[in-house]
Amino acid sequence: MTAKTNAGNYFEDFRMGQTISHATPRTVTEGDVSLYTALYGARFAVQSSSAFARTIGLPRSPVDDLLVFHLVFGKTVPDVSLNAIANLGYAAGRFLAPVYPGDSLRATSEVIGLKENSNGKTGNVYVRSVGYNQRNQVVLDYVRWVMVHKRDPATPAVEPTIPVLPDVVASDELTVPEGLNLSDYDHQLAGSPFCWEDYIAGETIDHVDAMTIEESDHMTATRLYQNTAKVHFNQHTEREGRFGRRIVYGGHIISLARCFSFNGLGNAFKVAAINGGRHVAPVFAGDTIYAWSEVLEKLALPGRKDVGALRLRMVAAKNQSCRELPYKNEQQGYDPAVVLDFDYTVLIPRGSD
Amino acid sequence: MTAKTNAGNYFEDFRMGQTISHATPRTVTEGDVSLYTALYGARFAVQSSSAFARTIGLPRSPVDDLLVFHLVFGKTVPDVSLNAIANLGYAAGRFLAPVYPGDSLRATSEVIGLKENSNGKTGNVYVRSVGYNQRNQVVLDYVRWVMVHKRDPATPAVEPTIPVLPDVVASDELTVPEGLNLSDYDHQLAGSPFCWEDYIAGETIDHVDAMTIEESDHMTATRLYQNTAKVHFNQHTEREGRFGRRIVYGGHIISLARCFSFNGLGNAFKVAAINGGRHVAPVFAGDTIYAWSEVLEKLALPGRKDVGALRLRMVAAKNQSCRELPYKNEQQGYDPAVVLDFDYTVLIPRGSD
Amino acid sequence: MTAKTNAGNYFEDFRMGQTISHATPRTVTEGDVSLYTALYGARFAVQSSSAFARTIGLPRSPVDDLLVFHLVFGKTVPDVSLNAIANLGYAAGRFLAPVYPGDSLRATSEVIGLKENSNGKTGNVYVRSVGYNQRNQVVLDYVRWVMVHKRDPATPAVEPTIPVLPDVVASDELTVPEGLNLSDYDHQLAGSPFCWEDYIAGETIDHVDAMTIEESDHMTATRLYQNTAKVHFNQHTEREGRFGRRIVYGGHIISLARCFSFNGLGNAFKVAAINGGRHVAPVFAGDTIYAWSEVLEKLALPGRKDVGALRLRMVAAKNQSCRELPYKNEQQGYDPAVVLDFDYTVLIPRGSD
Repeated sequence: MTAKTNAGNYFEDFRMGQTISHATPRTVTEGDVSLYTALYGARFAVQSSSAFARTIGLPRSPVDDLLVFHLVFGKTVPDVSLNAIANLGYAAGRFLAPVYPGDSLRATSEVIGLKENSNGKTGNVYVRSVGYNQRNQVVLDYVRWVMVHKRDPATPAVEPTIPVLPDVVASDELTVPEGLNLSDYDHQLAGSPFCWEDYIAGETIDHVDAMTIEESDHMTATRLYQNTAKVHFNQHTEREGRFGRRIVYGGHIISLARCFSFNGLGNAFKVAAINGGRHVAPVFAGDTIYAWSEVLEKLALPGRKDVGALRLRMVAAKNQSCRELPYKNEQQGYDPAVVLDFDYTVLIPRGSD
Repeated sequence: MTAKTNAGNYFEDFRMGQTISHATPRTVTEGDVSLYTALYGARFAVQSSSAFARTIGLPRSPVDDLLVFHLVFGKTVPDVSLNAIANLGYAAGRFLAPVYPGDSLRATSEVIGLKENSNGKTGNVYVRSVGYNQRNQVVLDYVRWVMVHKRDPATPAVEPTIPVLPDVVASDELTVPEGLNLSDYDHQLAGSPFCWEDYIAGETIDHVDAMTIEESDHMTATRLYQNTAKVHFNQHTEREGRFGRRIVYGGHIISLARCFSFNGLGNAFKVAAINGGRHVAPVFAGDTIYAWSEVLEKLALPGRKDVGALRLRMVAAKNQSCRELPYKNEQQGYDPAVVLDFDYTVLIPRGSD
Repeated sequence: MTAKTNAGNYFEDFRMGQTISHATPRTVTEGDVSLYTALYGARFAVQSSSAFARTIGLPRSPVDDLLVFHLVFGKTVPDVSLNAIANLGYAAGRFLAPVYPGDSLRATSEVIGLKENSNGKTGNVYVRSVGYNQRNQVVLDYVRWVMVHKRDPATPAVEPTIPVLPDVVASDELTVPEGLNLSDYDHQLAGSPFCWEDYIAGETIDHVDAMTIEESDHMTATRLYQNTAKVHFNQHTEREGRFGRRIVYGGHIISLARCFSFNGLGNAFKVAAINGGRHVAPVFAGDTIYAWSEVLEKLALPGRKDVGALRLRMVAAKNQSCRELPYKNEQQGYDPAVVLDFDYTVLIPRGSD
């Protein structure tokens, strides 16, 4: 009789170049979209109103890019990070074909880097995960790396391979949705008068809004994403664990911060790329999340006069207002309030003249 | 560099006759409807079953009227009540075109009254808000007034204008959905044998059912409605605030009470008007809500033998059964348990003879 | 003036052979399906992805069988168990026509057994409940029995009738969905390599996964099912009740355990029958649920080489890992950690050779 349950992969189970086809394909529906709104209060007009989406050349409201990210991420968990100690970083993330309700997603991951840690007990695994729709179009493509337990510290170390990852997704690799035409974009309905031209590199924005996280909220989100990592769900074991309590899925913080960023970036209607990201500190139920952003770079898009891109640093902090823009201290360590340091690129309408 | 975030309007920012086109248009979906059921346990057959709705001449189940109200209300918050101290009242609310899943809503508000308070620090703003669908049909039209901070107490007072508001929406202003035909209305399936004829003016009904509110529940509702008022979400600041905790969105109480009212008013399948309403006391997570109703008036509808209207007072109380019908004390102050005093009009089938 | 509220039925109100047509018909939507995922983290591929469902001959993802069960069960509560003290057991449950989003359900119950208890204060009521879709096809058919208060202990006892119930639903009574063809079933996407042939009678599986229940979670589920039993919702009265707190709806535990069972039974994609079941002990918010299963029997299906059935015992425990398979002690009393003892039958692909 074979053991029937999934014990997850340990560091020794990963091989360079290995490709994993993940389980649990998922049809995204209007129900998922409503739950996403109910979890974060998302207000970007393009995703909120199909009538608005049609005025900019889309067939209807696309599914929020971060919901797509969480769904694809969730599929990778049972194979990649069930035995992970830490989700170390993201890079080279690109959102490609838009996802609409009714699309069925699946995901694969390729192992692109392996490096044992000096303690001999853990190793870092780098994977490039790809989400596909039912037409086998890529909807999302990103790299993440995680620290995973070795099954046996005595296993000899593998030859280390650390992939070369870009600091930023270049502007000519950003995808603008097919048919997009922002000439009739209604700033009044969208809730912000500010175009690409109104932002300058180095500009910082405190997003003001904040939200306290409840256990039920983050668990509902994480279940919706079919993410099975035990640390989010089981208080009976976590009370004996590292923190004495359940840990909030890091992606939940990304979505909260992104939704707060509407207040100041209301027209930044689409995430085009994830350049990098780190979950700097754990978040627990009862914590109140705030966020601020810095415009890192303004990117013109080849051949487009109606739409530009902003590369943003989005920082989330817990239990502290972001009025003072908490980030790093003089030693370049993070301010203790900071929980997320996220570098991503958004699309935003350009001014008409 | 311009400040990019919305600081909300202060009393000085409003002008008589000003019209505001609110942001964040919203497509209502089956996902929103399911969440509404999951938030309140709504059981009115017309909204619950499209098969039932078709037996009374509708194309499918319409979206619950109060969900439409909350969605329209939510849109007005960033412009009207972000700096509000209190939501003072409602009047002259009419539900017009029914809303179906797939409809895209937007909202406008017109300032119809302004009156500075004697302390010079605040003023009351009266707005008539209108919700439209994607065909520019009015789906809802109502007046509310809120007490808003002045930006600067030194600003000279404006000439006060207080709009004349009706005590009740007259029966010839009530809209019956097009195509409605109640001749095949199935009382057994609907869950109540009682018709318009079975109710008498002055009759009171304790709705018996009750529900304890959790933080996650009221925040999920308020996010679903894209209502951004900070007092509902941020425990980190509210613990230093007036009440030391987050305040439940008043509309959440209206929906809870309305759903409890199924028990005694199971055929009152549609809200036709909001005649008036006051949130008498704040509600917090942990409070248990009960409700009772009084039939204030029976209204025949011009030209209709199959459907009549009941004007109801719906009272919600917290942490106290409504067996004793808590309302006002001898000095006409509210019983301390009362949290909502809501005057509205519902449609209900008439008996067949 | 007639009392308008539903006081529920007491033992004296039930008659042998009586048929009750329950209120609140319900259209099941994609919104309900998303909420089900968000409540339990369900991961069976057939229900999760319409693309996957089409590869096995179904038109799209069917609604999870247990969601159908809860919706039908919820309708029976106001008539059958509003005055129930305990939900004593289930038997003879069969899932027949699959339910798809858009289907409208209604339910009836027939009283098939009545037996007063020796204390004269309560009696057991046995009902056969049937759920129908809008084409009047039976979607679910099951027996449950509940202990109900007598209105008046002085009422003379009725002649006891205890229905003869099968221990198990026979394999020739199991329904395979029309058009099902598992020849292209993708085990990789489904997340488990194990077929019917890989399981043996007597095999036990600890499902490893676990989840802590929050008040908001179980109340959201129970409201979604329009189940109105007061014990789940009203902390104001329950704090004075038997347990001092709200009780989690027993069906919530069945769904949690079933979703955990994916880990070990990932291809057991459809519930075909409920042979029996008992809620052994109450569950409260804060409890962490675990589950394990035993294969009781392997059932070949007449005329099918692609699909077989497994009869399973699924046991849920609270606040204790299921590594040791907690069940009964030497005196055949239940281990104090056990909360659910559920005997059901699932469909699972057979191996291709």
